Amino acid sequence: MISGERFSAVYRITGSENEALEKAKDICFEETVEFPEELVPNGMIRENVVGRIESFEPYQGSQTNQLGLESYRAVISFAIETTANEFTQLLTVLFGNLSLKPGFCLEEIILPPSILRLFQGPRFGRAGLRNWLGVPKRPLLFTALKPMGLSARELANIAYKLALGGIDIIKDDHGLTNQCFAPFEERVTLCAKAVEKANQETGYYCIYVANITAPSDEVFFRAKLAKEAGARGLMVAPAIIGLDTMRQLAKNDQIGLPIFSHPAFQGSYVIGQASGISHYALFGQIARLAGADATIYPNFGGRFSFNREECEQIVRGTVVKMGHIQPIFPGPGGGMSLERVPDLLQIYGLDVIFLIGGGLFKHGPNLIENCRYFRQIVENYMDTLL
Amino acid sequence: MISGERFSAVYRITGSENEALEKAKDICFEETVEFPEELVPNGMIRENVVGRIESFEPYQGSQTNQLGLESYRAVISFAIETTANEFTQLLTVLFGNLSLKPGFCLEEIILPPSILRLFQGPRFGRAGLRNWLGVPKRPLLFTALKPMGLSARELANIAYKLALGGIDIIKDDHGLTNQCFAPFEERVTLCAKAVEKANQETGYYCIYVANITAPSDEVFFRAKLAKEAGARGLMVAPAIIGLDTMRQLAKNDQIGLPIFSHPAFQGSYVIGQASGISHYALFGQIARLAGADATIYPNFGGRFSFNREECEQIVRGTVVKMGHIQPIFPGPGGGMSLERVPDLLQIYGLDVIFLIGGGLFKHGPNLIENCRYFRQIVENYMDTLL
Repeated sequence: MISGERFSAVYRITGSENEALEKAKDICFEETVEFPEELVPNGMIRENVVGRIESFEPYQGSQTNQLGLESYRAVISFAIETTANEFTQLLTVLFGNLSLKPGFCLEEIILPPSILRLFQGPRFGRAGLRNWLGVPKRPLLFTALKPMGLSARELANIAYKLALGGIDIIKDDHGLTNQCFAPFEERVTLCAKAVEKANQETGYYCIYVANITAPSDEVFFRAKLAKEAGARGLMVAPAIIGLDTMRQLAKNDQIGLPIFSHPAFQGSYVIGQASGISHYALFGQIARLAGADATIYPNFGGRFSFNREECEQIVRGTVVKMGHIQPIFPGPGGGMSLERVPDLLQIYGLDVIFLIGGGLFKHGPNLIENCRYFRQIVENYMDTLL
Repeated sequence: MISGERFSAVYRITGSENEALEKAKDICFEETVEFPEELVPNGMIRENVVGRIESFEPYQGSQTNQLGLESYRAVISFAIETTANEFTQLLTVLFGNLSLKPGFCLEEIILPPSILRLFQGPRFGRAGLRNWLGVPKRPLLFTALKPMGLSARELANIAYKLALGGIDIIKDDHGLTNQCFAPFEERVTLCAKAVEKANQETGYYCIYVANITAPSDEVFFRAKLAKEAGARGLMVAPAIIGLDTMRQLAKNDQIGLPIFSHPAFQGSYVIGQASGISHYALFGQIARLAGADATIYPNFGGRFSFNREECEQIVRGTVVKMGHIQPIFPGPGGGMSLERVPDLLQIYGLDVIFLIGGGLFKHGPNLIENCRYFRQIVENYMDTLL
């Protein structure tokens, strides 16, 4: 009944060596049998179902806990059967009850082929999204329709200008759902048309991405509405609709659109520093397993608190080898200005989607010109690489 | 287009007075228009869509931030139209992007009737669950089937003993989903039957609660399977399946069973102390809005870190007046022993569901006798009240 195959996870555990070792043992029980150690039946359950400490060592040097606390790196393995072949139960084993305990951070997930093959991962991934957009190499230009309160017609007019200016991907702001100001169907229809009209004039291929974060009985309905209206991508906040619902959207053949993952309501997992989930695992590995083609996150130096190291972690998580699960695009955003783009190009390189929302509107009085300037910066950078 | 009606939220903001005031203003923009202040259109958007600081004052005395940091209490109001009448978008306005910023804690939610009437809340609530169980007054006895790795038959045998011993509610451990050890349908069928058999012998009315935390395309299917098999309640981890999916389960007339909310994967919202969501709002108010009839959480003094004040916060959140949204049961659990029950009765009083899992197995060699002892403690306490 037990194959003997195991998956594992790396945890950063805060505490003295003895405390941390006790905590590592605690993971083995808490995340599986959740039963007093002395009562665990001998045999298969004790030997296989209970988690197993594969290694335990102090974190060194640059990897010291950000709070300056002593911390240890524990690799814990679990029988693949504990997951019941379910993404949801995989999350429960990795970090279910642990989320309730301080001093545990899920740093990395290591899955064998037998688990990876259960998941499709991103339908498009980096290569597929480049193909979808017809942009083989350069960084992608991404922005958002806002502010909430504008009518569908006003938002569509903005979308038209953004597309005229050469943006690649225009999404709804994540707070735009189905408000009376700009009801979903009307907004999506007008915005998709506006982008299409601009494309006919420019010869570019800009896509409109509809936010379908919604009550769970509405999500798939809106996905279909958006697709029929001409949206060429979908955005969801997986912490609001459920990570697994994002995965179902990604694997649905009738939908078949690129999925953009938005971090709203998800930040608490990474804000705790000594507790939670690493940026690498959450916005990188987990987003990929859950089917995102691009993972949006707040860039360092903007109006959010992520630092450069955390953002670089995310980039590594989007591309680290995970069997057949494709690499996805990092989508840094949040309070970025056009002035920073040249520096960010040096840091992120080519495989990035720059999300500039407010900064694009703020740069100068002419929105179309602002977009052209954004595109020019990126194209100039491409020229330097020739 | 704007009714003028507003809902509001209380935030605890960490920082000096000036910093905190800036952060309070930030909430008003970040959670609505997400746009540079100077570019927000005048008129309806600036005056109504942008959030509004209703009050701002320092936290005093016992409410000092647990980290010893200076903190301020800001009440921010938002136009009801920003929510689009959606529970999911309400969550986004309350704490979407804020989750990504340190030093903000969502302490309390204050909703007017126009928003409350959008939500059914718990189908049963405290009174309905008491009625469902036929227990008008006393605290309810709750336990879990474990450990993972046992067969469905073995788990059913344990369920039989627990029910014979006088437990009111027996749930699957939250890690039991559809593992090969005890596949969902077989487990649910055998456990429901075992509890029914015991009920016929004892004359008690114990219910079996099936864990239906599962991939999102399976949740409703398992709910129906469980109901047909005789389960008389359902458990989900809303952080895994999505809070709104729990709400949909609760309001579904074809299902119509009590919903038990499990905190797995949800702890990161409350572990951050200076950042996140309060225990009161998350396990109390939000659980109720999302349709839970009972909210399970780790009790103080067990193997988790919640303290007594945090647990008392949760109890207040389960019962605070929220229009027609009924009060629900607090379900403290997690490393509780029978020895603590007399003290906990003094603290929690009558309207509580005591969840004792491992502690019930550990108390003595005879599981049925352990259950009888548990019940006796509670019944003795009831006698003292006559």
